[in-house]
Amino acid sequence: MSGDLMKSEMAEQPQVLAGLVDRSGELIAAVREVVPQPLRGIVFVARGSSDNAAVLGRYACELTAGRPAGLAAPSLHTRYAARVDYRGQLVVGLSQSGATPEVVSTCERLREAGARVAAITNDDASPLARVGHVTLSTAAGAERAVPATKTVTAQMLLVLLLAAALGEAPYGAADLRALPAAIAEVIADPEPVQALAESWAEHRRLLVVTRGLLYAAALETALKIRETAGVHAQGISSADLLHGPIASLDSELPVLLLRGGAMTATELAGLADRLCDLGVPLAAFGRTSSARRPDAGLARTVSLPLELPEGLQALTATVRGQQLSLAWSLACGLDPDSPPGLSKVTPTR
Amino acid sequence: MSGDLMKSEMAEQPQVLAGLVDRSGELIAAVREVVPQPLRGIVFVARGSSDNAAVLGRYACELTAGRPAGLAAPSLHTRYAARVDYRGQLVVGLSQSGATPEVVSTCERLREAGARVAAITNDDASPLARVGHVTLSTAAGAERAVPATKTVTAQMLLVLLLAAALGEAPYGAADLRALPAAIAEVIADPEPVQALAESWAEHRRLLVVTRGLLYAAALETALKIRETAGVHAQGISSADLLHGPIASLDSELPVLLLRGGAMTATELAGLADRLCDLGVPLAAFGRTSSARRPDAGLARTVSLPLELPEGLQALTATVRGQQLSLAWSLACGLDPDSPPGLSKVTPTR
Repeated sequence: MSGDLMKSEMAEQPQVLAGLVDRSGELIAAVREVVPQPLRGIVFVARGSSDNAAVLGRYACELTAGRPAGLAAPSLHTRYAARVDYRGQLVVGLSQSGATPEVVSTCERLREAGARVAAITNDDASPLARVGHVTLSTAAGAERAVPATKTVTAQMLLVLLLAAALGEAPYGAADLRALPAAIAEVIADPEPVQALAESWAEHRRLLVVTRGLLYAAALETALKIRETAGVHAQGISSADLLHGPIASLDSELPVLLLRGGAMTATELAGLADRLCDLGVPLAAFGRTSSARRPDAGLARTVSLPLELPEGLQALTATVRGQQLSLAWSLACGLDPDSPPGLSKVTPTR
Repeated sequence: MSGDLMKSEMAEQPQVLAGLVDRSGELIAAVREVVPQPLRGIVFVARGSSDNAAVLGRYACELTAGRPAGLAAPSLHTRYAARVDYRGQLVVGLSQSGATPEVVSTCERLREAGARVAAITNDDASPLARVGHVTLSTAAGAERAVPATKTVTAQMLLVLLLAAALGEAPYGAADLRALPAAIAEVIADPEPVQALAESWAEHRRLLVVTRGLLYAAALETALKIRETAGVHAQGISSADLLHGPIASLDSELPVLLLRGGAMTATELAGLADRLCDLGVPLAAFGRTSSARRPDAGLARTVSLPLELPEGLQALTATVRGQQLSLAWSLACGLDPDSPPGLSKVTPTR
């Protein structure tokens, strides 16, 4: 009931990420060896929290490779038997266990269709690892809590390294070295998020809103809260929010904004004002704006450390989201380590 | 307050679709003239309900063209100034008004990056139409209710015709001719959905669940209910549901299942049983199963007419969803024609 497992696995993240940072040169070189020439596009295959890391990869790889990147629709390959030509495509399969059947079989089919496959998994001996031309191991050690934490941020870092293998790195070398300490700083500072979780504990709905490279962190924060606290939480892009869903907001549907990303300061302040006018309970993760205009609607901002490039900030925001989900689950009297109805490997096909 | 506008525009759908069916040969030929040779992939650019039509197009085009298809992340092009090479790509921009700034500017950038562009819009003189190498007009006449209805099903039919231009049509000729009458049959039978809306009127949350080609209809049904009734509705794939969000279901979060799509009858029955055990209020749209096993959890099925191929069934299911959103909005005492906080053109950039 204590969430000790999840908490201890969250605390391992600086070390896990530091290990990957140390090996970043070697990992980037390993990806470069399998990239098709010429590279026509990049397609990610994943479900659940791995799919959220894939979203980060999709943005980062299109930026660095300059070729279309996207997410596979596995049912096309596992149910509709699509006959496809994937020559020139780099397919990236992500699964923490490496055992989700539809991820493995979609990667197999796309490899047969001509793609080069990179597998990102926490189990180097898994079926997914066997399908890959190259395997990037999250090397996070066994993860026993049902909500994935250290394996998710490790996957996120690996997709950024993969993006770096395809073009100019989406971060500076010093930023990358600073990441583990930034994550440790977030982990050492759980109180602001605990207070937020306690004040929102009665709510059964949540939107997590941002845009651009931070979108992956919004999706992952929502999924984690959904899993651990049973809250109907949803991650949504600020642009999508304005195209309809904003009509469903009211004082019973809190919004968590992730500052930064592709929203300008003016857009963020405008959205916050509009949500305040609707009576929507509002909080934010991020660096406090230095703009002169006071952020009336964003007084409640939980800080993120340092000025990291957005790709890396997706990881610090994700860890803040893990803290929120753990605290929200405990505030509801639930067991975050083992939420009802979930198991560690979900055998979708 | 009556929803008369939305209702009358919904009623025009058989006629609008019949017009497109009559011109299908000509529309398919017009697409074929601009498809890049060789075709490397297909990328859809849209927001809001147009984005849901894009999801249908994404599935249908990957099936018929056999090349990767996906959805653009507009912020990569409007905010991050991604330098990309889109030669060999068919880019499909969808906007009912043709005036959403980010859809227009993303299509412009991708055209400059080498893509051929097809514009799907209800305004042939719009900025989006001017960016396209070819324009496929929804030809639906003026749409005045804020919730888009006839323009959405017209867009859905156009993406299926576009898919037919890239390979073997995802429907038979007789199926296509039968579509307008099938839509008319749904429109003539609003009572079962009205009863459902009245029984669910107090709920403020909803999941619409399916998989595969019907996923677009689930997303669109959720968006329409969200816009018109202010309900926190979300469309989700059945596979994604099992990877975490199922932990957030309870007796206050009803689920609407769309039968058919990529779920097998066994999977559908298994999911329905599991949801019943959780006390989740459950209903379905679709053909009643002819399997021997009684569908305990799916007694409440609102029928869809005929045995249409899945691509076309996405349209009949979408019209059922429109009926549900209209009825739910009225049951809440709202004005479906003009939901609070929304306007006909959302100027996201």
